[in-house]
Amino acid sequence: MSASSSGTAPRILLCNDDGIHAPGIHSLATALDGVGELFVVAPTTEQSAVGHAITVRDPVRAHSVAFEVPSGPVPAWGVTGTPADSVKLACHELLDPPPDLVVSGINQGPNTAVNVLYSGTVSAATEASILGVDALAISLCDWSEPQFEEAGRWSRRIVEWALEHGLPRGVLLNVNVPALPEDEIKGIALTRQARARWEEGFDRRTDPADRPYYWLSGTFVNLDDGQETDLSAIERGYVSVTPIQHDMTAYDAFDALTDGSWDESFGGTDFET
Amino acid sequence: MSASSSGTAPRILLCNDDGIHAPGIHSLATALDGVGELFVVAPTTEQSAVGHAITVRDPVRAHSVAFEVPSGPVPAWGVTGTPADSVKLACHELLDPPPDLVVSGINQGPNTAVNVLYSGTVSAATEASILGVDALAISLCDWSEPQFEEAGRWSRRIVEWALEHGLPRGVLLNVNVPALPEDEIKGIALTRQARARWEEGFDRRTDPADRPYYWLSGTFVNLDDGQETDLSAIERGYVSVTPIQHDMTAYDAFDALTDGSWDESFGGTDFET
Repeated sequence: MSASSSGTAPRILLCNDDGIHAPGIHSLATALDGVGELFVVAPTTEQSAVGHAITVRDPVRAHSVAFEVPSGPVPAWGVTGTPADSVKLACHELLDPPPDLVVSGINQGPNTAVNVLYSGTVSAATEASILGVDALAISLCDWSEPQFEEAGRWSRRIVEWALEHGLPRGVLLNVNVPALPEDEIKGIALTRQARARWEEGFDRRTDPADRPYYWLSGTFVNLDDGQETDLSAIERGYVSVTPIQHDMTAYDAFDALTDGSWDESFGGTDFET
Repeated sequence: MSASSSGTAPRILLCNDDGIHAPGIHSLATALDGVGELFVVAPTTEQSAVGHAITVRDPVRAHSVAFEVPSGPVPAWGVTGTPADSVKLACHELLDPPPDLVVSGINQGPNTAVNVLYSGTVSAATEASILGVDALAISLCDWSEPQFEEAGRWSRRIVEWALEHGLPRGVLLNVNVPALPEDEIKGIALTRQARARWEEGFDRRTDPADRPYYWLSGTFVNLDDGQETDLSAIERGYVSVTPIQHDMTAYDAFDALTDGSWDESFGGTDFET
């Protein structure tokens, strides 16, 4: 656990994937006003579902942006790139010293189950964790007309806890807040990523020249009846907090893979789990 | 384990992130000629480092592309989207029935350690695995003038094994082949993702109007001295095969998080690992 050094105000970088002008990141900054020294570095435009994309074939630019919280202005830059680009540029170039904590959000819509992989909000936090900086991703489970105040209050509580106690190395927290009024949220549940997937189709249309094009569409289906999942926690009125890591090795698969047929074909392995 | 149904030729979908015209996917198709019924659905243009991006705000299009292997033409489509888009569109729209196996590659350059998260090659295989289709990602550890023949031979061996035995549910194989001649490759090692990171900087330049822009640059640093990692295997002359899952939950973190301070602040958790 690596809590921030006491004595000075912690440096907190805010990022998101909805873009620097989205209401969620302004609500987050307002909610965290006074918790530490705030900085905002986020994509200039919406970057939903970019996953962990980074920009390697083009340069990126950063533009200073006016950004206010109740106590005054916050240094803020819009970046012509992805959420992961924004965190990299902030940590390596724009902020000196780098931040003590990165908070990504508040996303409009949940980032649960397999959506963790598609989410730009989570990828900003994952990038911070790769760079060795504690990080949280925060999403509000409401696509339509989100009210961010309650999610902001929970963000502040969890951020204060993370600043005081630090996070395990290489682990970030993926927070999903149900779209419920204050008195209907039952508390926080530590959860795992649910097994779920999109039952997808494509909406096939033809353009005026009669050429086909396809819109991704689909229904999200929970395939997991565990009570300890992110989806279940939200359904039951809890704020879901899932610890996430960027080591994607399927450790449980080694036994299944080395059950005989693998060894016969390719020889044994000296891997020890 | 879900091996493909015997009796009929397995349907094998090829994808990549270097684009449908890249030499690596042609070498892969040639290497797999005769193993099953081949199909190619891959991005029209290079999509390196797009991670698990999907296209949700725009439609995608698919164009039929001429694609030949020694035994004859292969049905092939170029997609105006990401690798994950290509796999989704192939499985839901272009191929009926969907494929028995997805093979993504052969990528020009390694996809090891944390690069798994940035890689479009791996994300195509991950997407297949999310959709319930067995999948492999194959990369050749050579950025400069890759010779894909040897990597093609290893691809064929591993694909044949996967078709016969199937993969554990939700697990894909991330294969990295060292850039060595046939007689210098020692065999296959089952590995885990190494702990490593990019020691990055940005190359700050100014345009003719004196405005700054930034090129991402950096050196890849292995922070992991384990012998059982993907990086170590390649260094020692082995083909590295890492089982990968898309559940990013940090199960080991639950104990650290619930060591007392979490419970005091937020109450206990009924999570059972």
